[in-house]
Amino acid sequence: MEEHKGRYIEESNIIVGRNAVQEALNAGVELDKLFVADHRQEGSINRIVAAAKQRGVVVKQVSSQKLRAICGSDHHQGIIAAASCARYASVEELLEAAAGRGEPPFLILADGVEDPHNLGALIRTAEAAGAHGLIIPKRRSASLTPVVQKTSAGAVNHLPVARVSNLAAAMDRLKEAGLWFYAADMEGEPWCGQDYTGPCGLVVGSEGEGISRLVLEKCDFRVSLPMRGKVTSLNASVAGGILMYEIARQRMGIKAK
Amino acid sequence: MEEHKGRYIEESNIIVGRNAVQEALNAGVELDKLFVADHRQEGSINRIVAAAKQRGVVVKQVSSQKLRAICGSDHHQGIIAAASCARYASVEELLEAAAGRGEPPFLILADGVEDPHNLGALIRTAEAAGAHGLIIPKRRSASLTPVVQKTSAGAVNHLPVARVSNLAAAMDRLKEAGLWFYAADMEGEPWCGQDYTGPCGLVVGSEGEGISRLVLEKCDFRVSLPMRGKVTSLNASVAGGILMYEIARQRMGIKAK
Repeated sequence: MEEHKGRYIEESNIIVGRNAVQEALNAGVELDKLFVADHRQEGSINRIVAAAKQRGVVVKQVSSQKLRAICGSDHHQGIIAAASCARYASVEELLEAAAGRGEPPFLILADGVEDPHNLGALIRTAEAAGAHGLIIPKRRSASLTPVVQKTSAGAVNHLPVARVSNLAAAMDRLKEAGLWFYAADMEGEPWCGQDYTGPCGLVVGSEGEGISRLVLEKCDFRVSLPMRGKVTSLNASVAGGILMYEIARQRMGIKAK
Repeated sequence: MEEHKGRYIEESNIIVGRNAVQEALNAGVELDKLFVADHRQEGSINRIVAAAKQRGVVVKQVSSQKLRAICGSDHHQGIIAAASCARYASVEELLEAAAGRGEPPFLILADGVEDPHNLGALIRTAEAAGAHGLIIPKRRSASLTPVVQKTSAGAVNHLPVARVSNLAAAMDRLKEAGLWFYAADMEGEPWCGQDYTGPCGLVVGSEGEGISRLVLEKCDFRVSLPMRGKVTSLNASVAGGILMYEIARQRMGIKAK
């Protein structure tokens, strides 16, 4: 895995060149992202870009140097795609998963979690804690890459993950379905003082920047973990895991001492 | 960071060659490990090895190829040391830290946690949860390397970490000091059904192999997190974090719903 300008790009799931990308699209391969050389305006590339956009794939204009850095050669013909390791679900499927189990929805929203190890660990813990699904935004987030799959210990194949263009808009829709949102935030009420037994969405932000302003404003409650030492924050997947298991405890009706 | 035969070796804290290692020892630099070429029996190397062993440094006989792999050149003169990023405390200092705060001891024992990211995250969460220290074994464990320091978000500089030759023997000593040990284990009682307000040690094992048999036998209780999905375990630092915050909750007297 290499890091380019703060973004993680993994080499094991990339599809290089016009024919290969076109064939992947034809075959219905789920693509995470399309990287296109910013000076290439040929018809064949434009057609691929249009088809990818229609399917909701994020398209990024990058330099030829960056394309070379991603695939390790100059034979990219101006286009590279990154394939997903699992199918993305729709937000509706997440709600259906809850309904199918006869439980009030319990969803995790990962806002801006760009580190694939953290996203993988969040998916793993969410699946173990009995959540019905996880939602990530299309941009400023790790996606379902091989590292996420590995770090999730295979949980990506069991827990539906939805990817949305706009997290705040998705929250509006979910509020109509009865969900209340709990933000994992440094300046909140103690984490175990809330009742999480109803339909709920737990919002976890990135370690560096926390939850984005728009998403935080949509949250109904802010919950936080006491920091008793000198460090001022926890690893995002650890903090998320602690909150998820408090939610799981209450939902399972396990009494705490 | 490179991985050699399943062990993590980081390049940013290595000291290469006889003079450099001897000077580091003279200067009192805390060394994690000494790697010595298995065919080198010169007096100067033997003297360094003897001095290092006297200070409790782990000495490993390795091939010249491995030394070359660690330092990236053939100029190692048969010896390489890995320096620690922080001073190791004694187990007694951990108990003194608890006494100094007027609290019953709350220690974390990491048994066989070889992934430096997991050890770093455990140290970070332990510091935040108000633990008084963490204990690792000398062998089969990550140690205080730069990656651990970074992943701990600097918590290694605030939380005392002790390194012992034998974890089970250390537990015997701590039992005399009144500690009860709680093993994070898949086959235990629900995690929040125990009373952790007395002197306690939380034992966390590696993801692959769990807690070693001897250490597990020394534990007074086994506590576990329910796994409601298809994955059968959590990331070691996430599981440890969930348990640490249950302990912190009880000790802070925070009421759960």
